[in-house]
Amino acid sequence: MSEFNNKVRMGMVGGGQGAFIGAVHRAAASIDGEIELVCGAFSSSHENCLATGKALHINPERCYATYAEMFEKEAALPEEQRMQFVSVVTPNHLHFPVAKAAIEAGFHVMSDKPATFTLDEAIALKEVLDKHDVLYGLTHTYTGYPLVREARDRIAAGELGEITKVVAEYSQGWLSEPPGPDNKQASWRLDPKRAGVSCCMGDIGVHAANLAEFMSGLEITKLCADLQPVVAGREIDDDGNVLLRFSNGAKGVLIASQISVGEENNLNIRIYGTKAGIEWHQQEPNTLIMKYNDKPAQLIRTGVGSFHPVAAGSMRTPAGHPEGYLEAFANLYMDFARQVRAFKDDEASAKLSSKAPGIDEAIRGMAFIENCVAATRADQKWVDFKLENVL
Amino acid sequence: MSEFNNKVRMGMVGGGQGAFIGAVHRAAASIDGEIELVCGAFSSSHENCLATGKALHINPERCYATYAEMFEKEAALPEEQRMQFVSVVTPNHLHFPVAKAAIEAGFHVMSDKPATFTLDEAIALKEVLDKHDVLYGLTHTYTGYPLVREARDRIAAGELGEITKVVAEYSQGWLSEPPGPDNKQASWRLDPKRAGVSCCMGDIGVHAANLAEFMSGLEITKLCADLQPVVAGREIDDDGNVLLRFSNGAKGVLIASQISVGEENNLNIRIYGTKAGIEWHQQEPNTLIMKYNDKPAQLIRTGVGSFHPVAAGSMRTPAGHPEGYLEAFANLYMDFARQVRAFKDDEASAKLSSKAPGIDEAIRGMAFIENCVAATRADQKWVDFKLENVL
Amino acid sequence: MSEFNNKVRMGMVGGGQGAFIGAVHRAAASIDGEIELVCGAFSSSHENCLATGKALHINPERCYATYAEMFEKEAALPEEQRMQFVSVVTPNHLHFPVAKAAIEAGFHVMSDKPATFTLDEAIALKEVLDKHDVLYGLTHTYTGYPLVREARDRIAAGELGEITKVVAEYSQGWLSEPPGPDNKQASWRLDPKRAGVSCCMGDIGVHAANLAEFMSGLEITKLCADLQPVVAGREIDDDGNVLLRFSNGAKGVLIASQISVGEENNLNIRIYGTKAGIEWHQQEPNTLIMKYNDKPAQLIRTGVGSFHPVAAGSMRTPAGHPEGYLEAFANLYMDFARQVRAFKDDEASAKLSSKAPGIDEAIRGMAFIENCVAATRADQKWVDFKLENVL
Amino acid sequence: MSEFNNKVRMGMVGGGQGAFIGAVHRAAASIDGEIELVCGAFSSSHENCLATGKALHINPERCYATYAEMFEKEAALPEEQRMQFVSVVTPNHLHFPVAKAAIEAGFHVMSDKPATFTLDEAIALKEVLDKHDVLYGLTHTYTGYPLVREARDRIAAGELGEITKVVAEYSQGWLSEPPGPDNKQASWRLDPKRAGVSCCMGDIGVHAANLAEFMSGLEITKLCADLQPVVAGREIDDDGNVLLRFSNGAKGVLIASQISVGEENNLNIRIYGTKAGIEWHQQEPNTLIMKYNDKPAQLIRTGVGSFHPVAAGSMRTPAGHPEGYLEAFANLYMDFARQVRAFKDDEASAKLSSKAPGIDEAIRGMAFIENCVAATRADQKWVDFKLENVL
Repeated sequence: MSEFNNKVRMGMVGGGQGAFIGAVHRAAASIDGEIELVCGAFSSSHENCLATGKALHINPERCYATYAEMFEKEAALPEEQRMQFVSVVTPNHLHFPVAKAAIEAGFHVMSDKPATFTLDEAIALKEVLDKHDVLYGLTHTYTGYPLVREARDRIAAGELGEITKVVAEYSQGWLSEPPGPDNKQASWRLDPKRAGVSCCMGDIGVHAANLAEFMSGLEITKLCADLQPVVAGREIDDDGNVLLRFSNGAKGVLIASQISVGEENNLNIRIYGTKAGIEWHQQEPNTLIMKYNDKPAQLIRTGVGSFHPVAAGSMRTPAGHPEGYLEAFANLYMDFARQVRAFKDDEASAKLSSKAPGIDEAIRGMAFIENCVAATRADQKWVDFKLENVL
Repeated sequence: MSEFNNKVRMGMVGGGQGAFIGAVHRAAASIDGEIELVCGAFSSSHENCLATGKALHINPERCYATYAEMFEKEAALPEEQRMQFVSVVTPNHLHFPVAKAAIEAGFHVMSDKPATFTLDEAIALKEVLDKHDVLYGLTHTYTGYPLVREARDRIAAGELGEITKVVAEYSQGWLSEPPGPDNKQASWRLDPKRAGVSCCMGDIGVHAANLAEFMSGLEITKLCADLQPVVAGREIDDDGNVLLRFSNGAKGVLIASQISVGEENNLNIRIYGTKAGIEWHQQEPNTLIMKYNDKPAQLIRTGVGSFHPVAAGSMRTPAGHPEGYLEAFANLYMDFARQVRAFKDDEASAKLSSKAPGIDEAIRGMAFIENCVAATRADQKWVDFKLENVL
Repeated sequence: MSEFNNKVRMGMVGGGQGAFIGAVHRAAASIDGEIELVCGAFSSSHENCLATGKALHINPERCYATYAEMFEKEAALPEEQRMQFVSVVTPNHLHFPVAKAAIEAGFHVMSDKPATFTLDEAIALKEVLDKHDVLYGLTHTYTGYPLVREARDRIAAGELGEITKVVAEYSQGWLSEPPGPDNKQASWRLDPKRAGVSCCMGDIGVHAANLAEFMSGLEITKLCADLQPVVAGREIDDDGNVLLRFSNGAKGVLIASQISVGEENNLNIRIYGTKAGIEWHQQEPNTLIMKYNDKPAQLIRTGVGSFHPVAAGSMRTPAGHPEGYLEAFANLYMDFARQVRAFKDDEASAKLSSKAPGIDEAIRGMAFIENCVAATRADQKWVDFKLENVL
Repeated sequence: MSEFNNKVRMGMVGGGQGAFIGAVHRAAASIDGEIELVCGAFSSSHENCLATGKALHINPERCYATYAEMFEKEAALPEEQRMQFVSVVTPNHLHFPVAKAAIEAGFHVMSDKPATFTLDEAIALKEVLDKHDVLYGLTHTYTGYPLVREARDRIAAGELGEITKVVAEYSQGWLSEPPGPDNKQASWRLDPKRAGVSCCMGDIGVHAANLAEFMSGLEITKLCADLQPVVAGREIDDDGNVLLRFSNGAKGVLIASQISVGEENNLNIRIYGTKAGIEWHQQEPNTLIMKYNDKPAQLIRTGVGSFHPVAAGSMRTPAGHPEGYLEAFANLYMDFARQVRAFKDDEASAKLSSKAPGIDEAIRGMAFIENCVAATRADQKWVDFKLENVL
């Protein structure tokens, strides 16, 4: 990078050839031209790592055999060349050790979701963070959509009145049949050794829970869960449905599934309050519906009318030019890049209107997964949502 | 009625001026020109009854002060004039005594839903029916929609494979605020003396459950319920969410609400099987969606392509000419009129391809309501679906 | 009919077994219980007429061999039995002579669309009406939809500002292939001897034009037309597209087609003004969209919020219970029945807030068809919309 | 750029701070990580140019005062540093001189649409290209959408049968009022000196025409046009509607508007053939509808089922993860980057399955605009589509 290139310098762990989510992170990081990928430990195979680095136009000397090597060698580089943050896109069970090592080496971390393999690890990660002065971000992607942010700010401003009910759903169909041996995406998700205690709830249900808390501004306090492997022979759930209570007493229903044949990536949420209801569908993310009992529903569309500042700053195109998943993802990276630039500058940090989800969301996410598993195992209907010692 | 008028002769109990559902029944009965309203005990106020009868062009001598009088006097008329069946559209708590009296007087009964006030009454009604040779029909309206019938027959034909999951919802918003004293529709529904043990689940949730069983061909066997009055000061539920198990082990989620602000009459259902998923929305009833993992979804529209015989016979207009709620209702009346005409003619009865829902659906419906209430009261997560001695 | 039956008494010409639109008229007339079919000349075959009458529960003595006989014999009946109006549902070329004979015999007329076979006939019909004191109604069905009426009243109230552009479309696909010999609906429409100078524009395009004028309150003043038989071997158009100018200078585009494969009955209209735009689709008639440049679009739904009185009076069911084509049709019959009841009662007539379309719409409709044909034949781009001597 | 950075090197003319489309081009070019912006003449103000360059992390020595200077100095750089192609995103009237200068300096050109200010210029540009061995691409953005490409290949494969009718629309509402003096986007578009002979048809209508030809594989051969400034005081059209004939005799309607209040960026197209119809809407670009007369419509969704190779290669995310406008744009840049890499390598070039639109589309686009203006001025209905000497 030249002296004039003042982009935020990113490294990556994981994301080698054949992986899926790494490419999404890279595209998201590059859309706005403010982040440059400068190094990586893309694969446990150094050959793959080098090939990936070459395809990504990266100096082979900065394509490292291991993440440990990367953190060590990057830390030794002059500050103006050195990676500033690392994007962690490994399989789930490595998120924690990689993030921990990065933090201890003094690097900011942007982690793919879930933050860790277990809740215990998430708590441990917070303890690591408490001891080191670095930033931690988590790509709960769907909170990057402009209209999700708008919904949150409208709800916070009281446009729905008191929240009474939340219905959140994340349904897919692609795991409805036993996956073939070559389906890399499916096989690790269904392997408790690599995926953890839950497949469906850990992989996607947690997004719906995160969205419910993010948009409503409420916290889940109790739950009654029914997780189950529907397809014979599986050890962990491929479908799960949960009844909820939120901190203000509001009721909730959360539906998650990976065996609902014909569903693509059907994440949707409806939040009802005493004054109005709000509805959003990820598959058509540029529309938000506000509904009333006594007057016509409003179709809020990106680019039409006025928006709260964070939502307004999350849109790149004029009305009617659709944005999608990569742009939502990019909003999280843009938030994080701004956090990195403002790091140790209290005034600048204070001005940031939006930050990427962080360690608190990470802990709540892992706790949600484990609480769902615990509640499923329970005979009693309701269990309290706990933030530690769940399983 | 002239000698040439061979329409099926209907009487009505309830449906006086100021009531809502009676007018819907009358419109539904008249669309196809095969049923004629000949008498009524429309109101406990004889003045209202006469005024209603006059507005309906009925002989005032056949506008009776009480249903008891109606059954007695109609029974005494010559057979060719006499009412053949009675449509029962009273408040819920009168459904049973009126139906019982009608049956005992030898009249067929078409009852508004719910069949009775309690499950015990529904069981008692079945016992009455067992002793008398008359027909009994129940207006579970939504099973009258052509595409609901088509979905049932496609599922029965195996197009979805083995059913794995059912998500049924019936959400409204109109009871989100304490209703004013002049809201007759709201006040009786929230009064346990007139509505029974449940408002939301009894009024609308039971339709979603009926639809789930009707379309899937499965029976609910276990449930975990969360019924609650959300609006302060109410004695019975205005919202309820239920986790389900069906007879083949399939999972289910049922969402019902009358406090989901901005929802009109949002009854919708999705059924997933091992081969395909199917989706239907009552508010746009002329479209049925078949979804697949590996090929494009199909938009099945009334009037386009081929249909199973019952669905085909339930459509009145060509493609693109929407039919709605009244026509669905009319299909149940048409079924029942044909049952009445074919009564005691075994050959004709055997040829009927479709019948109105009857006493078995009535019992399952009342049982569903009471099981939901019992499951809500329970501390354990799952309760078995029972057909007697529930509460 | 008994002495207590004060329904408006209707006769019918056409609509024998095997016909389509007659059954629609009968269902529409019967939904609200205010009209009774008492007689008919249902078919040129007296056998069919009698069989139709029997199926409709009509006295065979009032099932007439010819419409001439019907008008003569009904006129001779006592007033309280006599047919009050006749519904004309014959093939198009008979609309004029039947209506003329009815009017001259003193009967009110409700005619299926188009009013006549030619514009000359429509003008002649008006002359007949000028000489006789009877009512004339025309079933331009789509103006019966509640939200079409609401749109008209909102536009009249200035909610769109000055109208600038109208885009109206009526597309179907069912004539995309040469119809088989047994397709009765198709064969007469494509036969100039029975359908007149136009198939597509006369059968359906004229509905779109009517809707454009009805909703906008404007009149078409100029047009540039491109009618054509797309399928080889046809003598008259199966597709037609027209550029328009309206009385205030607004621009218009009208698209009509019967060869647009996959289109069912896609009648839709958008009207744009200086303040807002409005959009309505017949296939989902219970939604009206109001659109703005600077604020969210509104989804106006039947039963939600407040409506102008005519629209409010055109809805039968609460929010979320869809109404359709038959109910829209029924609204025209209800209007006409009220006109019949109020006939010669100036005070009552003055109170009617809505009337069925009449002879003026009939003339403009026939003129539209002939002007389209004339404009298609012209080499110059724009021709003036004329109300006589068009072809 | 380091020696390992093998990205295609792009320069930009236009796109300084305050401009809109330049940022879109830059985002589109960067998503896939294969193109790097290395230099620019971003503004006629050198100050703006430098500030833009700084914000884009570009060496200030490569932020040039004029495009002439840029072409000269870049040409003098070592080949491995030198800009390989230039993205032209200036106001319309500069597209031609900039592109011409670039070509003559030996640089490939990727031009924003329209290619030139007049048809004559487009023809002249082709002559320049004929003399120089460089690549020329044009960002007719909407052809970059995966499902537009899929539709084209399905039509080419005969899935629609013979094409009979095309209905293409591009409607917006944002110019419905006289724009304020600070609306930079509006003021140049309505100034004939900067926008050319047409505003609405030149700015957006031409996209609809391009899409119609691209998807159908047909060419427009005749047209009848009605372009007009609807808002008083404008010199050039803000609305235009056109009747069309295509090379195989198919009919067409093209609707374009910038005064249709409430329309965002409503580009949509329907193509009908003898076997099926196809429909696509830019505002929900991840769905393509195939419609039939005799069987259910199919909802083709990105990521579900199988696709032709070019469409398959144009998707970045799995099913249900929406892609949008920037990704469509990026597909054109990706095509062009591949063309640049394969330049002078006949074997590699032959393997490219997709290329960005080029000079032929440029000429047809400019010809379409001028033919529409000419046809509007004509009194006769139909004018032939000409490729030169139009106005």
